[in-house]
Amino acid sequence: MGATGSIGRQAIDVLRRSRNFRIVSMSAHSNTSLFTKQLKKIRPEKACITDAAAFKKYGRRVMGPTKILPPEELSSLCSDKKIDLVLAGSSGSSALIPILNALSMGKTVAVANKEPIVMAGDILSAAAKKHGGKILPVDSEHSAIFQCMENSKVPPEKIYITASGGSILRAGRKKITPEFILAHPVWKMGKKITVDSSTGMNKGIEVIEAHHLFAMDFSRIKVLLHPKAMIHGMIEFSDGSVSAYLSAPDMKIPISYALHYPEKKKLRNFMDFSDMTLSLEKYPAEKFICFKLALEAGKKGGLYPAALVGANETAVNAFLLKRIPFAQIARIIKKTLSETPEMRYNIPNVLRVEKWAKEHAEKLIK
Amino acid sequence: MGATGSIGRQAIDVLRRSRNFRIVSMSAHSNTSLFTKQLKKIRPEKACITDAAAFKKYGRRVMGPTKILPPEELSSLCSDKKIDLVLAGSSGSSALIPILNALSMGKTVAVANKEPIVMAGDILSAAAKKHGGKILPVDSEHSAIFQCMENSKVPPEKIYITASGGSILRAGRKKITPEFILAHPVWKMGKKITVDSSTGMNKGIEVIEAHHLFAMDFSRIKVLLHPKAMIHGMIEFSDGSVSAYLSAPDMKIPISYALHYPEKKKLRNFMDFSDMTLSLEKYPAEKFICFKLALEAGKKGGLYPAALVGANETAVNAFLLKRIPFAQIARIIKKTLSETPEMRYNIPNVLRVEKWAKEHAEKLIK
Repeated sequence: MGATGSIGRQAIDVLRRSRNFRIVSMSAHSNTSLFTKQLKKIRPEKACITDAAAFKKYGRRVMGPTKILPPEELSSLCSDKKIDLVLAGSSGSSALIPILNALSMGKTVAVANKEPIVMAGDILSAAAKKHGGKILPVDSEHSAIFQCMENSKVPPEKIYITASGGSILRAGRKKITPEFILAHPVWKMGKKITVDSSTGMNKGIEVIEAHHLFAMDFSRIKVLLHPKAMIHGMIEFSDGSVSAYLSAPDMKIPISYALHYPEKKKLRNFMDFSDMTLSLEKYPAEKFICFKLALEAGKKGGLYPAALVGANETAVNAFLLKRIPFAQIARIIKKTLSETPEMRYNIPNVLRVEKWAKEHAEKLIK
Repeated sequence: MGATGSIGRQAIDVLRRSRNFRIVSMSAHSNTSLFTKQLKKIRPEKACITDAAAFKKYGRRVMGPTKILPPEELSSLCSDKKIDLVLAGSSGSSALIPILNALSMGKTVAVANKEPIVMAGDILSAAAKKHGGKILPVDSEHSAIFQCMENSKVPPEKIYITASGGSILRAGRKKITPEFILAHPVWKMGKKITVDSSTGMNKGIEVIEAHHLFAMDFSRIKVLLHPKAMIHGMIEFSDGSVSAYLSAPDMKIPISYALHYPEKKKLRNFMDFSDMTLSLEKYPAEKFICFKLALEAGKKGGLYPAALVGANETAVNAFLLKRIPFAQIARIIKKTLSETPEMRYNIPNVLRVEKWAKEHAEKLIK
């Protein structure tokens, strides 16, 4: 899922170098020109275009050996019996039901797509546990913690995830425009997530994700500022010792690990330790209002994370379109969270509240 | 073994806080006043004084429940059926035969004492393998690597051990006296090992130790300069990712780990990551002639490491007694190594060559 996005493109690179895999099906949202090129090269059995308008232009048809399918078929693609592993590299909540279905069929899901875990982590974990499915994190921080925890015989006292800080810490008094934000220093990522890094939202939802993936109380998940993005995660034991996971800031490393788990395939993107300074600092949460909002929503739990995700998506898109200034992103999310309706926590309501939050945020923007 | 030394004293502290252990027997070299105090508190069944002159003064006798025994009884103490675990915290080669005996009885030996591993690593490993004994490293660097390797499902491509650099890198043009050297910045250690840190010998023999403990070719063991001594060891995988082990520079942490292995007991000596800068640099091997000598001896193997250990001990003691200047330490070792006799590699010859090297070095000093 999300073949034309940053994760999808890098995953295809990794997969083409490996003999362990056959790509059975692929999905993309709206970048049909790149998707067409990918399909011609990879020749999967099925392909799904998840943007309704893009699919309409394209049409249900056959291209070489590949059947092109509409958005509503995505979920059945992921629960196809032929498939062992699903890589969720899409963004937003559209992959939530497909991921749930794949886990409920006992499949392994490599998840780079944060929103489903943040919005419905408890439900996804329960489904995986019940049906023998496995969630493998692809995010560099969670892959780091996963590897530290997976390899440790002793349970940790605390986990640390690192934050490069985004571009905002160096902004000074400059006006924060989309152009400024998108000149992100360390990781090459999509636009939305680059803005999320700058507001602190990305790190906040990573903490919620860690809470679900590692069944850890929020009080035991710490964030550290680490501009170089070499140390991605650490776990701390009761004797005071710490196991850390380092790598070059290259998403191919965690993508390859999740795909080949529990093996590690050669990538040879070695770090140069001959002159390296790694600084770790207190994460300046006070500068990242969205980080705090995310943590509050995460701790409250229930439907609040869904409202957070919905409001954030709408607000960030409005900022990217220059409809609102940077500082309004947090205000819109905060207001939306404070007005979130109380309902039972289940998948239909999670999706309902996310939709409500998008619409509510849009009203506030207008 | 070595109850009154730095490792021994800290191990006693750790053991007194733990209910998992009973100290059956203890040994010390010549510090009989401290040893007497320890014996009165701990009341082991047997105690051995390994320095012949000190034992002569003390005499074979009973003190409370404790039988005091002469040097030649050390080995039988370590192969006592009552004992599950031996901690080798002594220095020099006197623990070599006791360690070999303990491993040959299938016991676990926690080794802080580098010389036996360096001189006879192949023989000790073979004995452990054959009889089900286990060698657990206590040195911080080797404990770090051991934990990284032990916890990893994938074999590493390379291992990194760190060096704080000793005091010598900051000496500038000052005259290098024993007093200057002993003002070591990071680790609280004995005098001999503090000098060994300054000459590079300590790091060199740690590389030889790592070669034996982890069955790793010398080409895959790298040393990095890391003055803060927080990262003790790292292992690198073929994808470029790295697993690192960090802790405060407190020997109680690796001592406690080796004693409680595979568990970790609370020590709560947590690091403060709120403002930490960790620098890693190329290890300036050209400034540490003894490091190079050690590596050469290690790569040659056979009896050369025994000659290295013997010559170094004599030369360092002569320096501490101000009989020779600092720069002569390396020269004496180099000359001794170049004149080492060729003999079969076995335990009697290992001990013979070490003794020869001590005498030869003494001749050169004179």
